[in-house]
Amino acid sequence: MHPAIFRTSAETAAFCSQCRRDGKTIGLVPTMGALHEGHLSLVRRAREENDVVVVSIFVNPTQFGPNEDLDKYPRTFENDVALCGSLGTDAIFAPAPADVYPDGYATYIVQERLTAVLCGADRPTHFRGVLTVCCKLFNIIAPTVAYFGQKDYQQTVVIRRMVADLCLPLRIEVCPTVREPDGLAKSSRNRYLSDSERADARCLSRALELARTMIAQGETDAWAVINALKNLIASTKSAKIGYVAVAHPDTLEPVERIEGTVLVALAVTIGGTRLIDNALIEAPTA
Amino acid sequence: MHPAIFRTSAETAAFCSQCRRDGKTIGLVPTMGALHEGHLSLVRRAREENDVVVVSIFVNPTQFGPNEDLDKYPRTFENDVALCGSLGTDAIFAPAPADVYPDGYATYIVQERLTAVLCGADRPTHFRGVLTVCCKLFNIIAPTVAYFGQKDYQQTVVIRRMVADLCLPLRIEVCPTVREPDGLAKSSRNRYLSDSERADARCLSRALELARTMIAQGETDAWAVINALKNLIASTKSAKIGYVAVAHPDTLEPVERIEGTVLVALAVTIGGTRLIDNALIEAPTA
Repeated sequence: MHPAIFRTSAETAAFCSQCRRDGKTIGLVPTMGALHEGHLSLVRRAREENDVVVVSIFVNPTQFGPNEDLDKYPRTFENDVALCGSLGTDAIFAPAPADVYPDGYATYIVQERLTAVLCGADRPTHFRGVLTVCCKLFNIIAPTVAYFGQKDYQQTVVIRRMVADLCLPLRIEVCPTVREPDGLAKSSRNRYLSDSERADARCLSRALELARTMIAQGETDAWAVINALKNLIASTKSAKIGYVAVAHPDTLEPVERIEGTVLVALAVTIGGTRLIDNALIEAPTA
Repeated sequence: MHPAIFRTSAETAAFCSQCRRDGKTIGLVPTMGALHEGHLSLVRRAREENDVVVVSIFVNPTQFGPNEDLDKYPRTFENDVALCGSLGTDAIFAPAPADVYPDGYATYIVQERLTAVLCGADRPTHFRGVLTVCCKLFNIIAPTVAYFGQKDYQQTVVIRRMVADLCLPLRIEVCPTVREPDGLAKSSRNRYLSDSERADARCLSRALELARTMIAQGETDAWAVINALKNLIASTKSAKIGYVAVAHPDTLEPVERIEGTVLVALAVTIGGTRLIDNALIEAPTA
């Protein structure tokens, strides 16, 4: 099946508006392209749960900082279209930057607290860009539900918060992180890694495994977990730690004493490639 | 006719959603209550043009600065409801602040450039509050069209810009400023004025009349107009000038040479009351 390919917001809005008038549900999978198995799991889920599946493919410039990888971010459009088609996607929205941010564009969504921690501390305008483009996609497509991967955990929290705060009329579904056989979380940026960096990148998922083990064995001191994870990661020569955090899964605020479910989240640069991973870990009841 | 009165976003969204499913158009008039003839002109227009009319009445705390008049802002709810009823309003949305900004609320709409000038220069968080609450109202009510008064000219520009930038699916209509017989623009804040201040407040509309006359007589130097208006206003002892500006009607950027249509906009504090007024003035063709 060949998905329809729309290059403008206006065409996309017209298509989706007709779908809604026909009483159809719409599942949206927002992506920056360079699709991997993580994205495809979202498309499959959207296909199972909706009458119409729309995948957006847009490398959103406003979510990249000035010294980040906007220019070299992988673009694999033909392959992305083929993959989406093979999974029964109805429409692909792949706008040019000038369609999303035309001359004179001025409006952004910002968020207090949640966007200032974890990845937001390293990337001060990143979530402003993410929230703005997602708000636009939600308004253009008006999906019944939008699907995001847990790999970008903070992104799912800030988007859920925006949807609740601004009363956006859609549901957000978060799907499990898809991993390589050795545990590395799938990411479009993994293709930046050399063979040796690819091997070193296993330190992220290994650190999360260590956190699981420590917490399962009764460790309740977040600093003990953080220090152990930092030591593990530091033993990989090419790894530079961005952050290792134990945080509340909803507020993202640091947790001191581990109880209930906590978020363990990491950002580690391997060579020149910034990778992130996370796990929601439930402490054993005392 | 008695309008339905909704106190929560959820009830309002349910009512409006049913209206849309029934194929009805919805006209929204967003207000902070203390309704005057300016608001009522918007309600009449909404009534003429739509199947369903919703008036929101909410004194929005986020658009007031820390030293502004949030606490003393006039609240005349019973009278507002009666006025809306007399004009055939179907529903009033009058939420509590905790419904609009519940605990943990974090998301705001901001805008570059347009919100930094004119009233935005004096009131740095004002338009953030206006944009955020309007975006929420638009999402909750999903009106076909929302009506605003030209008296708050900059507000109409930033809201139109937000609607275009975020692809919000509604139309914005701007209705003419309604004035007292002596020219004073209707405003809920006029009731703060003492009798002598009320007389002094005529300097705003007189200044706009002077601008009209000068431009009609061929004045093309914006600074000459601004200086003349400042002199006129300064001759009123109780008046303190906030700004007098000649600006482009869309970008709000200062104009030096007057041609085509220009915005002449004023903010003047009379006693303790900050008043604004404006006019779109077309220069005679050379």
